[in-house]
Amino acid sequence: MIDDSPDGSVPGGDATYIALCGGVGGSKLAAGLQALLGRRLTVVVNVGDDFDHLGLRICPDIDTVLYRLSGLNDEQRGWGRADESWQFMRALGQFSEETWFQLGDLDVALHVVRTHRQAAGYALAEITMDMADRLGIDARVVPATDDAVRTKVVCQEGVLDFQRYFVERRCEPPIERLVFEGAADARPTPAAEAAFAADSLAGIVICPSNPYLSIDPILAIPRLRALLAERRVPAVAVSPIIDGKAVKGPTAKIMRELNVASTPHSIALHYEGLIDGLMIDTMDASRQAEDCGVPVCSAATLMTSAEDQVALAGAAIDFMRRIAGTMV
Amino acid sequence: MIDDSPDGSVPGGDATYIALCGGVGGSKLAAGLQALLGRRLTVVVNVGDDFDHLGLRICPDIDTVLYRLSGLNDEQRGWGRADESWQFMRALGQFSEETWFQLGDLDVALHVVRTHRQAAGYALAEITMDMADRLGIDARVVPATDDAVRTKVVCQEGVLDFQRYFVERRCEPPIERLVFEGAADARPTPAAEAAFAADSLAGIVICPSNPYLSIDPILAIPRLRALLAERRVPAVAVSPIIDGKAVKGPTAKIMRELNVASTPHSIALHYEGLIDGLMIDTMDASRQAEDCGVPVCSAATLMTSAEDQVALAGAAIDFMRRIAGTMV
Repeated sequence: MIDDSPDGSVPGGDATYIALCGGVGGSKLAAGLQALLGRRLTVVVNVGDDFDHLGLRICPDIDTVLYRLSGLNDEQRGWGRADESWQFMRALGQFSEETWFQLGDLDVALHVVRTHRQAAGYALAEITMDMADRLGIDARVVPATDDAVRTKVVCQEGVLDFQRYFVERRCEPPIERLVFEGAADARPTPAAEAAFAADSLAGIVICPSNPYLSIDPILAIPRLRALLAERRVPAVAVSPIIDGKAVKGPTAKIMRELNVASTPHSIALHYEGLIDGLMIDTMDASRQAEDCGVPVCSAATLMTSAEDQVALAGAAIDFMRRIAGTMV
Repeated sequence: MIDDSPDGSVPGGDATYIALCGGVGGSKLAAGLQALLGRRLTVVVNVGDDFDHLGLRICPDIDTVLYRLSGLNDEQRGWGRADESWQFMRALGQFSEETWFQLGDLDVALHVVRTHRQAAGYALAEITMDMADRLGIDARVVPATDDAVRTKVVCQEGVLDFQRYFVERRCEPPIERLVFEGAADARPTPAAEAAFAADSLAGIVICPSNPYLSIDPILAIPRLRALLAERRVPAVAVSPIIDGKAVKGPTAKIMRELNVASTPHSIALHYEGLIDGLMIDTMDASRQAEDCGVPVCSAATLMTSAEDQVALAGAAIDFMRRIAGTMV
């Protein structure tokens, strides 16, 4: 294990970083990284959860990242926007039975604008970067791909669309496997490709999102996986497992269903060949006896405040810089 | 002038009626007729104002009629829904400059559902009747046509889409003429056709909507105009002009621009051959010296309460019954 006491310094110069990110958990670390890096951060966001609902294109992970990085997110509820209201849902129920997915009055505006722009021929990446600019977001927020990648959950009862599984069925049906429809033919967005190609690139962070539901749909895009595999800079993953449990969401449940132990070791194995280091929670540090195959760094990975986010981001950057020192 | 003292009786039996209707003014009389006739009323609604905004199909007159006949309308504001809120607009302004058309949080739900259903292949009439049912509306609310009829305002500066003229430009550019794009090839909705064909049909009311902006786009559909022209039952128009002025909206202004005097006589001329009687306001009754060419009946046409609506509806029904007596 590499000495894991960060030196607390913020990287200077023009070093740029990439964060691969899903929704709620991952976006917290992305917010911490943004606080330290500003425009030098590119957040490559999962689109496997995207779906069409009532004719609106909804991109749950992109929306979560946009709201979080602009500070518009609702901290209490954990998803969606602060000061949200639900009049739209009230009226929707008068006209339709399709009320299983909660759409706030503020949130609907984003979906309407995105759907309208996509119909007008703009790419998801263009729309997303324009929205990030309008919200005053410093970091570059880019979808993994402009092509359609759709996560499908294969379970005993059949194949479920991701949001039906995740929201309507509350992750109850045991997962047999996941399919990322369209991923094999999908190409990275030009902005994602450019972020990997930049001479200034100094490191890549896989955020503590669900590896199976949020990160794998990104890595299922062959060119993105290759860009990560052929990296010339350190890549580290932050484990979403703390003390054998997932902080939020169904990560641990899915790991059980996929017959994988809920340990940092499993996370390291999952990202084998794609990372140069694993960040684990201090709670797991003492019993992390197994060799993860890569350097391990422990830190407080539970982020319950903006300070936690920045501290973990600083530790991740520091970890990458120390690994870079050993890579030379 | 036919004796215009109504006998106050509500028509019994299975006599059915048709109301041709635009938005705010017309929908008030439609509400009064509904109170007396229930399911025996078919409201044929103008679709010339319909437009696509942010990818949503908006049908201002249909929406106004649905909200009014279900009692969901906002009495104070005069348009839209009661208890409306504007969070959607607030968020929309963060993502788009297209904020000239006010969309309430409740109202947006109707547009989203309609747009989604139209994309799925349902006809506007089917969608509208389903919505009316869901809102517990007794009357049959049917669009004039399922085809696209779009009102265009020809003015000195060029051709304006109707809502741009009406909302964004607040009816300021002087009108040279109006064009109802698509009307020549449009066919009436099956429900409108059936209402005219019904053996039970006892009368047709042209509501006090703007004749040029709200009723003409209906009458520009050749088959609907023919059905009205070949009627076997009395048709009466309720003049939207009171004391030389329009109660609401740009009717009087447009009449000036089109070089037509703002009098009931002009309204009668406008509907020549299509009506068997004209209802005018009591304020105009004393000076209505000109021969309108059809029997004239005076009543209180300004509707400021539900009671006013029912009273005028009763007077209109009574007027049609008296005309029917003279037609035999």
